[in-house]
Amino acid sequence: MTACAEKQVNYPHSDISMLLSDIELRLDELLPVDGERDCVGAAMREGTLAPGKRIRPMLLLLTARDLGCDLSHRGLLDLACAIEMVHAASLILDDMPCMDNAQMRRGQPTIHCQFGEHVAILAAVALLSKAFGVIACAEGLPANAKNQAVTELSHAVGLQGLVQGQFKDLSEGDKPRNADAILMTNQFKTSTLFCASMQMASIVANASSEAREKLHRFSLDLGQAFQLLDDLADGMTNTGKDCNKDAGKSTLVNMLGAKAVENRLRDHLHRANQHLEAACQNGYATQHFIQSWFEKKLAAVS
Amino acid sequence: MTACAEKQVNYPHSDISMLLSDIELRLDELLPVDGERDCVGAAMREGTLAPGKRIRPMLLLLTARDLGCDLSHRGLLDLACAIEMVHAASLILDDMPCMDNAQMRRGQPTIHCQFGEHVAILAAVALLSKAFGVIACAEGLPANAKNQAVTELSHAVGLQGLVQGQFKDLSEGDKPRNADAILMTNQFKTSTLFCASMQMASIVANASSEAREKLHRFSLDLGQAFQLLDDLADGMTNTGKDCNKDAGKSTLVNMLGAKAVENRLRDHLHRANQHLEAACQNGYATQHFIQSWFEKKLAAVS
Repeated sequence: MTACAEKQVNYPHSDISMLLSDIELRLDELLPVDGERDCVGAAMREGTLAPGKRIRPMLLLLTARDLGCDLSHRGLLDLACAIEMVHAASLILDDMPCMDNAQMRRGQPTIHCQFGEHVAILAAVALLSKAFGVIACAEGLPANAKNQAVTELSHAVGLQGLVQGQFKDLSEGDKPRNADAILMTNQFKTSTLFCASMQMASIVANASSEAREKLHRFSLDLGQAFQLLDDLADGMTNTGKDCNKDAGKSTLVNMLGAKAVENRLRDHLHRANQHLEAACQNGYATQHFIQSWFEKKLAAVS
Repeated sequence: MTACAEKQVNYPHSDISMLLSDIELRLDELLPVDGERDCVGAAMREGTLAPGKRIRPMLLLLTARDLGCDLSHRGLLDLACAIEMVHAASLILDDMPCMDNAQMRRGQPTIHCQFGEHVAILAAVALLSKAFGVIACAEGLPANAKNQAVTELSHAVGLQGLVQGQFKDLSEGDKPRNADAILMTNQFKTSTLFCASMQMASIVANASSEAREKLHRFSLDLGQAFQLLDDLADGMTNTGKDCNKDAGKSTLVNMLGAKAVENRLRDHLHRANQHLEAACQNGYATQHFIQSWFEKKLAAVS
């Protein structure tokens, strides 16, 4: 991480904050305007704009920059927002009574608790659909690049992506399963949307197939690290989500204990960084962002 | 309809059956292969491949031909299948307990009754997502045409389309509402996906903006006619769906009586045909298809 530390001055905190603000302002523009009687629109806004980490769109933007893109490219910001809309839709649905039956998310009652189950489903469908439309209309991108981005997102959401991850988690989570099965579920649940973010950054940057392959591997390790962090944080009360949802569930934390899981997490993070270094020749913003984010979170769960 | 009758010999029943078979074979190819343990894939297949009218993809193909397209164009068939996947996803979600709470559809138990609510939601999300991916990968279409098609579909599904129609129907259907409110809900519920089908046919055929506008109007009238037919058929027991779901609901049938509704339906159908004639210069397949389909259905509900 020496190179990263040396470059840190180029990516000060204010820069990250500015990107975060750009993402949230653009999401606000892209989402339906507030209307008193429009519950579905309000649920879309609430599900997307409630305070969140914005990790996926941030990674897309930072990696695009590390691959040589100019971040003033308007289309890039739209792709980042599309990824965040899909993430928001997946959280709304994961929280439903027939799924994880969660009451709290991001410090607020979950969307179905606020608006009803029917509105939650409709808002998630509208967000998903909007995400694809946003990509197809993204400014300043070649039509072919937008088609590739739609293809990546479709794959990340579908039966080989988020849908499969949630299904496996629901159907296998409360049964005994080995570490490989858990890793596979985590890959579907978490890595696939990171992959889509990385591939979208690669598409805009016109990155080499070697760089894309490295970024794919980066996403797999990063997804595992995130899921392990999520499992470590499950017992905590200050995450804004229901706590102890994993009690009795076959997670790696329940199987191996917190210390071993933290070690695994650091291994994944180390490998993720190696892949990132190999892929990105134009900067270290992503590395720095990931590293500082995990250090902060790990300090909180230790 | 004289011209249509004259041209009938060019579109015999076997031709329509062949197109139907093409659609179902391609859907079968595009959907996940049957896997014993893959409930979500099975629900996607069941929700899409259970016997259905395939009206929307048929209209897309026939209109494309009437606009001068060669139906051997593989990409056109993929767009038609994408429309049918979205329609299937919308039916799965509309039937959910928190929506219309339907038990039967297409003569089978509804998807959530067969597979559980969580699988129903996941299958619908996977179908929606797949539909966008199918468009983005459609063979032989210019990238720009595929982007336009994604944009049309995104609009048809979202907050100004199916989502809004279902929300309005759920939130206003059991309250007194005037005829205009009912027409508006029907437009969102039914016309918007017809519009997307027509616009996709226009995109592939590179139709003029005048033709597109006429096809848009055609879709609005056709959607109203379909919804009125659906309302007229609600009391029947042989539709493959739950019957009498509209009892106590503010539909035009409950407000005006069946005869007046049938007259309205025929007015919409007449106007739909006029728009179609003005838009399509290369054939009358769509007109003939619509006319014979409605005559058969109206004979059954009269």
